[in-house]
Amino acid sequence: MRIKVVNPNTTASMTAKIGECARAVSGPGVTVDAVNPPSGPVSIESHYDEVMCAPGVVQEVLTGEVEGYDGYVIACFGDPGLLAAREVASGPVVGIAEAAMRTAGYLGRSFSVVTTLERTIGHTRELTTSYGVAGQCAGVHACEIPVVELETDPLARATVLAACESALQQDGSDVLVLGCAGMADLAAHVSGQLGVPVVDGVVAATLQVEALVRMGLRTSTRGEFATPPIKDRIGV
Amino acid sequence: MRIKVVNPNTTASMTAKIGECARAVSGPGVTVDAVNPPSGPVSIESHYDEVMCAPGVVQEVLTGEVEGYDGYVIACFGDPGLLAAREVASGPVVGIAEAAMRTAGYLGRSFSVVTTLERTIGHTRELTTSYGVAGQCAGVHACEIPVVELETDPLARATVLAACESALQQDGSDVLVLGCAGMADLAAHVSGQLGVPVVDGVVAATLQVEALVRMGLRTSTRGEFATPPIKDRIGV
Amino acid sequence: MRIKVVNPNTTASMTAKIGECARAVSGPGVTVDAVNPPSGPVSIESHYDEVMCAPGVVQEVLTGEVEGYDGYVIACFGDPGLLAAREVASGPVVGIAEAAMRTAGYLGRSFSVVTTLERTIGHTRELTTSYGVAGQCAGVHACEIPVVELETDPLARATVLAACESALQQDGSDVLVLGCAGMADLAAHVSGQLGVPVVDGVVAATLQVEALVRMGLRTSTRGEFATPPIKDRIGV
Amino acid sequence: MRIKVVNPNTTASMTAKIGECARAVSGPGVTVDAVNPPSGPVSIESHYDEVMCAPGVVQEVLTGEVEGYDGYVIACFGDPGLLAAREVASGPVVGIAEAAMRTAGYLGRSFSVVTTLERTIGHTRELTTSYGVAGQCAGVHACEIPVVELETDPLARATVLAACESALQQDGSDVLVLGCAGMADLAAHVSGQLGVPVVDGVVAATLQVEALVRMGLRTSTRGEFATPPIKDRIGV
Amino acid sequence: MRIKVVNPNTTASMTAKIGECARAVSGPGVTVDAVNPPSGPVSIESHYDEVMCAPGVVQEVLTGEVEGYDGYVIACFGDPGLLAAREVASGPVVGIAEAAMRTAGYLGRSFSVVTTLERTIGHTRELTTSYGVAGQCAGVHACEIPVVELETDPLARATVLAACESALQQDGSDVLVLGCAGMADLAAHVSGQLGVPVVDGVVAATLQVEALVRMGLRTSTRGEFATPPIKDRIGV
Amino acid sequence: MRIKVVNPNTTASMTAKIGECARAVSGPGVTVDAVNPPSGPVSIESHYDEVMCAPGVVQEVLTGEVEGYDGYVIACFGDPGLLAAREVASGPVVGIAEAAMRTAGYLGRSFSVVTTLERTIGHTRELTTSYGVAGQCAGVHACEIPVVELETDPLARATVLAACESALQQDGSDVLVLGCAGMADLAAHVSGQLGVPVVDGVVAATLQVEALVRMGLRTSTRGEFATPPIKDRIGV
Repeated sequence: MRIKVVNPNTTASMTAKIGECARAVSGPGVTVDAVNPPSGPVSIESHYDEVMCAPGVVQEVLTGEVEGYDGYVIACFGDPGLLAAREVASGPVVGIAEAAMRTAGYLGRSFSVVTTLERTIGHTRELTTSYGVAGQCAGVHACEIPVVELETDPLARATVLAACESALQQDGSDVLVLGCAGMADLAAHVSGQLGVPVVDGVVAATLQVEALVRMGLRTSTRGEFATPPIKDRIGV
Repeated sequence: MRIKVVNPNTTASMTAKIGECARAVSGPGVTVDAVNPPSGPVSIESHYDEVMCAPGVVQEVLTGEVEGYDGYVIACFGDPGLLAAREVASGPVVGIAEAAMRTAGYLGRSFSVVTTLERTIGHTRELTTSYGVAGQCAGVHACEIPVVELETDPLARATVLAACESALQQDGSDVLVLGCAGMADLAAHVSGQLGVPVVDGVVAATLQVEALVRMGLRTSTRGEFATPPIKDRIGV
Repeated sequence: MRIKVVNPNTTASMTAKIGECARAVSGPGVTVDAVNPPSGPVSIESHYDEVMCAPGVVQEVLTGEVEGYDGYVIACFGDPGLLAAREVASGPVVGIAEAAMRTAGYLGRSFSVVTTLERTIGHTRELTTSYGVAGQCAGVHACEIPVVELETDPLARATVLAACESALQQDGSDVLVLGCAGMADLAAHVSGQLGVPVVDGVVAATLQVEALVRMGLRTSTRGEFATPPIKDRIGV
Repeated sequence: MRIKVVNPNTTASMTAKIGECARAVSGPGVTVDAVNPPSGPVSIESHYDEVMCAPGVVQEVLTGEVEGYDGYVIACFGDPGLLAAREVASGPVVGIAEAAMRTAGYLGRSFSVVTTLERTIGHTRELTTSYGVAGQCAGVHACEIPVVELETDPLARATVLAACESALQQDGSDVLVLGCAGMADLAAHVSGQLGVPVVDGVVAATLQVEALVRMGLRTSTRGEFATPPIKDRIGV
Repeated sequence: MRIKVVNPNTTASMTAKIGECARAVSGPGVTVDAVNPPSGPVSIESHYDEVMCAPGVVQEVLTGEVEGYDGYVIACFGDPGLLAAREVASGPVVGIAEAAMRTAGYLGRSFSVVTTLERTIGHTRELTTSYGVAGQCAGVHACEIPVVELETDPLARATVLAACESALQQDGSDVLVLGCAGMADLAAHVSGQLGVPVVDGVVAATLQVEALVRMGLRTSTRGEFATPPIKDRIGV
Repeated sequence: MRIKVVNPNTTASMTAKIGECARAVSGPGVTVDAVNPPSGPVSIESHYDEVMCAPGVVQEVLTGEVEGYDGYVIACFGDPGLLAAREVASGPVVGIAEAAMRTAGYLGRSFSVVTTLERTIGHTRELTTSYGVAGQCAGVHACEIPVVELETDPLARATVLAACESALQQDGSDVLVLGCAGMADLAAHVSGQLGVPVVDGVVAATLQVEALVRMGLRTSTRGEFATPPIKDRIGV
């Protein structure tokens, strides 16, 4: 089984880290390749970034179809391009936000999300409604570290941990969800320090794709997610 | 006052029609210009189309800022790129789906949407949740005419009318909402035939932008919709 | 076009102020007349007041039909008598609470309401549910100034501003909504001080009526809002 | 214990019937008096009727306070004036719609309402939301008999029964709720014919008031429902 | 009329207290018997306890059918076994949580629950959703006194009162609901001290059963709550 | 890794089939053991059955802790005893209803459930609310085959298929969910015939437990799901 993990931003070091995290949990016989689009924003921190990165994500999935992948992960917590990717992929496509937040549902009554910048909280809240987890999401909190500085800021690890601790106390929640693919390597550390389950969406989504492929399940082609109608696309 | 109406698809004849409809209702002293991006899909009928057209929509708004527009309409019933456009515009931005559905709220208890293809119903329903009108939306119905054929199919007018009549009966609703910018010229006809208010989003959104500008209101820059952070965008 | 703005309370000085605010934004060729019922409570601050003022509001609309008005505004944040007025008016009727709160939806993710007395918060919250904006309303806050003292209390302006600032901080919202027609003249001041959009329902509702009339739209007569059945009304 | 049952309309024969039904279930030592306002609409079938009858309802409660009643029932399925009555009564006040629909919650998963005219369905649905029973209300159905004809139409009994049977089949519900005080005498008949529990709000509300008084419970005076502020009421 | 009040735990002193409270409010001609299962947990403070006590509750109702009871109260705030009891009883069955929370709806806009241990809050919140009162429940608060210590801890009365006062202030609610059958004797004291209505579910449920029996209403047998199919039960 | 699959009913042949289905998808190195309690109902088709089987389910998990299992599946679509099992297990516990319905969320906009008897639909709907999937569940349909006859009725396969086809057409949904562990072997057949993804909860839950264990995740012990307090349990 071959899974393609698409990092929607163009920061190669983050793509590498995401690939490592995904491979660390995937089962025997599963190949995980992590890629990012050749062009686009270096991080996704606004609606503008979401719009600009989504065509690249979908293109990576279209390419993946030629390459023969069995399923796809979209590795950005805004799940950009997810529904479009489902229309064009022949295997399952899972976003890390949906995977992380649904996984949290198996582990307790409620979860808190800790994400990067405060300006992304509105979009995350909208996703909780789309995915049906709004009632389980006790809070969304920003640590105010920009995505790319998660890798460079020497205090990032401590700042994320502090934001997680504060979120737990403020929300009285059972579970933490890390709200950025760039935090994928922090889950074990935070869980060890705070004594609660901490869900990273990269590994949750990768295992979810693996499970769907094993069950022979893919996106329904019955209506909304059927292959899009062929049409002229001027100038594209 | 100058309002820029952006048709997210690249069908120029539809752009022209949208402009005419908007100008027919705008007040004295208001200039309305209708445009479409130079490249992109000729119609928006899938999540894939939404993703592919959105960068062009945002680019038109960015250009509009240089051109000195006071506000913007996004003239496709999926409201593609709306939130991103709000981040980059200095004046208000209104989508035709939100304007049509909120306008319907002033006219009765419930409304029915009649749109083009069935595959777009899911996205419309998601918008009703985002805009808080899910409880007022009694149904979303497809007439199964592709967007571009609204202008070429000689039976389009009759087919849309029949779908509207059927929607009213099935839903027991008070108001009709036309679910495609390409239907903007049909509102008066359908209303005359069926005896209920029929809301077209193109005119509703244009008048909403005019009203917001007159009140001196624009998108809040306090958090989520502040100007996006400047960053490297590889290959863009 | 002639719009009748009905102030549901009997305080003439407030009626005058409301009329000025409405006229300041209405378009060329639009006549705005502000009136109040000849009898009833001097302010609306309880369910009892709502019940006692509503017949007067509806009577003003019935009179307006004879006078030939094209549309109506109900200028009290509880929107008293709104649905009944829609049954008897031949043009559109818009309440200032619904107009203000729906307008806020075009300007950000969430809004906070600042109103007069704490005892009215429950009614406002119920309206947010009726209008579908409960998910966007981040909070309702009282400044504890009775309605009639908004005009006489020399500290009113400062107290409302302080309540607005506190609401923004507490709720983390994007937009402010002024929860009383008697605050109609404070919107620009508060917006200037706090740097966020501030929506006053009087102007929002007036422009909404103007837009509906221009679009040829009025309340549906298909069911719930058809003219009420003629019947004996003993002793009335 | 003395309970005052207020019929909001001015049809004395209906008031008499309501009184009989309430007295048939009230406990030993409980006096039930049924009254109606001296003026107002003969039946409540529109938002206009609701507005016009509500001051009379509240006045009956104010009079009741002087007369020394322990609690009040508002005996019209729209619960007109309920919240205002709670502000001015020193004992509990219960509407028949809220009592009927909450009572149904003890008897099954879901209930169907059968009411008089279709135009009142919207208001009933809004009440289901206010009372928290929207998720349990499987449908609201009209038998299209005007309120006053419930007493005069020789086919009324059969028509209501047929509407109830149809509602059960269409909704797959467990329980029926009669949506008009004028149907209070039909509950046993319909239940006997259809084999499901049938809740009439008049008796449910009367017993609820009796229970609240026995428990020493009345409306909270802590905030929203405190006695309304004393104020000038011009011309009243 | 004979009502059987089933205390789901096996603490006889609590059963006695519950019986006294219920008898204190029940009407003339009503016999109230309070019992508890012969085996099971001494208090219900976890999902595990809920599961272990429920068969005993249902067995008490089955026995009650032979004994000829007209209706049943389940006197634990988690309402364990309620739906199963409805399937096997020929009279109505009411849980104290549903009765208390629905009763609160007649007394104000919102209520706060004060319960025993924090770990039970999640279950209580789930009940508010099931019963349709989630929108009215302003908060659920724990006083951190284990159930059995309500009777032995000399500070219990003061601790519960303090938790109630804090809940009111924090939630801004109108009404208090006591979240444990073991607090049934504290309602009057708390209400007297804090000046708000305080609802105890034991008396509310007993009076609700009495009212249902008087109205001739019992659980619908139309579908979900019909007598369960007879089947082999291995080893039972 | 060792996973214990608990069939809550006492029908050994069903337990065997469940075990086979689970083993067919589990990964290399995963041992799956399927068991059922020694006593209890032979099938779960009522609230009464749910109550009677739950102690046996929890006991199997307690035993599993001694036996050293890493995680548990509860293999009945009502998920009986799930929350209690989470309190006592040191590894993750997943119910087949939650796993099936959350899995469906990755495959389309909406799903339909096809279950056994109509009387269980209410419980299933309540689970959709608890799990946050009510908005995605387009319908719950009964094929009216009792659980134990799924194995003996020669027409069962055809009847389930017909109910699935009818559900798809009626609901316009994208995905089917099989609402009984006894249907676990029908998923591939139904999917092949109807051309949509068909989710069986037994395999979905087994793979979910496997994924959780691989990620090192288990139920939070922070509050509600901490080990229950030790207490006297009279007569147990």
